[in-house]
Amino acid sequence: MSASTWVPGAAGSLFDVDNLPYGVFSRPGEEPRVGVRIGDHVVDLAPIAAAEMLDVHHVFEEPSLNPLMAAGRQVRESVRTWVTGLLVDETERDLVEPSLLPLAELTLHLPVDVADYVDFYASEHHATNVGRIFRPDGEPLLPNWRHLPVGYHGRAGTVVASGTPVVRPTGQRRGGSPTATPTFGPSARLDIEAELGFVVGVGSELGSPVSYDAFADHVFGVVGLNDWSARDIQAWEYVPLGPFLGKSFATSVSHWVTPVEALDAAWVDLPGQLPEPLPYLGPGATRGLDIDVEVMVNGEVVSRPPYRTMYWSPAQMLAHLTVNGASLRTGDLFASGTISGPEPDQRGSLLELGWGDESAFLADGDDVVLRYTAPGVRGGRIALGEVAGRVEPTRG
Amino acid sequence: MSASTWVPGAAGSLFDVDNLPYGVFSRPGEEPRVGVRIGDHVVDLAPIAAAEMLDVHHVFEEPSLNPLMAAGRQVRESVRTWVTGLLVDETERDLVEPSLLPLAELTLHLPVDVADYVDFYASEHHATNVGRIFRPDGEPLLPNWRHLPVGYHGRAGTVVASGTPVVRPTGQRRGGSPTATPTFGPSARLDIEAELGFVVGVGSELGSPVSYDAFADHVFGVVGLNDWSARDIQAWEYVPLGPFLGKSFATSVSHWVTPVEALDAAWVDLPGQLPEPLPYLGPGATRGLDIDVEVMVNGEVVSRPPYRTMYWSPAQMLAHLTVNGASLRTGDLFASGTISGPEPDQRGSLLELGWGDESAFLADGDDVVLRYTAPGVRGGRIALGEVAGRVEPTRG
Repeated sequence: MSASTWVPGAAGSLFDVDNLPYGVFSRPGEEPRVGVRIGDHVVDLAPIAAAEMLDVHHVFEEPSLNPLMAAGRQVRESVRTWVTGLLVDETERDLVEPSLLPLAELTLHLPVDVADYVDFYASEHHATNVGRIFRPDGEPLLPNWRHLPVGYHGRAGTVVASGTPVVRPTGQRRGGSPTATPTFGPSARLDIEAELGFVVGVGSELGSPVSYDAFADHVFGVVGLNDWSARDIQAWEYVPLGPFLGKSFATSVSHWVTPVEALDAAWVDLPGQLPEPLPYLGPGATRGLDIDVEVMVNGEVVSRPPYRTMYWSPAQMLAHLTVNGASLRTGDLFASGTISGPEPDQRGSLLELGWGDESAFLADGDDVVLRYTAPGVRGGRIALGEVAGRVEPTRG
Repeated sequence: MSASTWVPGAAGSLFDVDNLPYGVFSRPGEEPRVGVRIGDHVVDLAPIAAAEMLDVHHVFEEPSLNPLMAAGRQVRESVRTWVTGLLVDETERDLVEPSLLPLAELTLHLPVDVADYVDFYASEHHATNVGRIFRPDGEPLLPNWRHLPVGYHGRAGTVVASGTPVVRPTGQRRGGSPTATPTFGPSARLDIEAELGFVVGVGSELGSPVSYDAFADHVFGVVGLNDWSARDIQAWEYVPLGPFLGKSFATSVSHWVTPVEALDAAWVDLPGQLPEPLPYLGPGATRGLDIDVEVMVNGEVVSRPPYRTMYWSPAQMLAHLTVNGASLRTGDLFASGTISGPEPDQRGSLLELGWGDESAFLADGDDVVLRYTAPGVRGGRIALGEVAGRVEPTRG
């Protein structure tokens, strides 16, 4: 379908009909429900779907995308076709217009009821930079890094919607010497991690791995994600069981979930993998996404990480996550880890951008916004949801 | 209340009226709902609560304990008083008896809709044993271990009820040399970890830590827990972000959740903590639970770990988990980590019991049962829920 949309201001914008991300919105005094974004409007899908007697109309009346996502790939594709038709066909205008709500009048919510949250470490440039900063005399990459997408579970209950203030976490930090008592107080090294998140729509059975080539059957769409990190808390706590309180205070995700079909034109070959990964990771079939990220701090762009430079692919992360038989659930979220490109101005964390300089970390009141764009299927670009957050001082 | 119960066979048993754990059961063709165990029976609470017009009667009609747990400490205490009255007062017998169901006729389910799952590492003996096995020439405990309860997030979606078969996980294991390609296949070092789990009833606000002295306001009760572990997968993957696929294939919990009031007589002083922990960990107020654990493999007791020998207390784990402002949700589960006592026959994992001997790990078809008892408030002992699981061969 190449016809233009009749929605005012949408044609040619970053939220044209080749985008159509899903989110959860509410109006004052009303319950949150599912909408789709077009230009600077949100289509309130529930009344239109009910009027047209869609058999899945109830999924749009829910306060999260989970029921829509659980309905599966075929429903996701047919709903997208239906919504596209509503927005390009002038004869649908009378039906749709009463449900076309100006974005500025709506409250947006966390779009997904997050089941499990897993964070990977899939950028070679990021892992190498971190290795060089923390272990300047050793090999920057650990022996397992090129054999598997290293990952860990994060806290699902503190995944918050873009715009939620982030309270500076308090915790233990290493003392002045290895035997000194640790210090305690607000983190002095509060950082960001610019990432991409993948949201699972269709779950899987316990004991049965999911193949890398079943990615689009299980993954519903993509979110922007900021994995806020307290580097001083993390550095003291993380041996031997990994990051915990240095990460678990907040992870912000975009209001909008971009369905995988909107990214059909964004797939590119990854830079390459040596040594060749094991067969379950689908060596040679490693496709990444050509998504450009912008990291803005207090209104200034401080970095432009390119997602196409990642080492491990989204499908490889999914295959690895389940190769031990771990089941997937609707609402599972897995993220890429910090996106860093090869150039100094392509790094996705302040740790790397400042290369250990203490003044590089976030101050109270700082505003962080992550923005994402990708090639659209019509030849232009589409925007993914942005991720904003302001640092608030420690309470009490 | 010291009167005896009228329920046949229950008085003097490990499930007397000083125990009364909650679970979720179903009968053929019926929906799962909440029950309380007395002797070898389950009280179907929903019809009795409805007949007596309890204002919280709806929480017993649910397929998980979460709504009951979310109702808070006061409701938990008053429901316990009410149930105790039903079971000791002969005049209630006619009301209750139609809802007193033989345990053998019921299917038991996962009792909790698990929100986030956190696993700690709170036994000094376990951490020391593991350190000695893996780092024979170094200090067995890492520098942070005596300053904070080390923990990490596990996979909530693969927490399963006792009795669920555990499929042997497949994954990558370290190759023959540091530069060799890793091997791939079913884990050859499948292990157990005998633990105690704590279930959160009442959540907390993002950005606001929970004090150690608010333990019983937030924690509803205790479960038995087996943190199945694939040591070979874990050893290769765990640097630098901690255990992932070596743990995420399955974590088994008991069908029964023992409310904290049933453990009022089980609190004991912990062995002691040096150096003194930071103030947020409540130094000097560190109370543990005198719970005896039995580890049975194929019907034989292989170990008797004593929970009273743990280093970090349940309240300290809760305070640490939230000190960074991480919020709690109803259904959060946090576990102690492997319970190991000072003696060789008190170790809670096969890794420690076999001290690295490969033949000590689990074979396909092996049955593991963890059993737990504690002092009851009437002077005898109560049983916590047991945790059973049989190892099934890798699929495919």
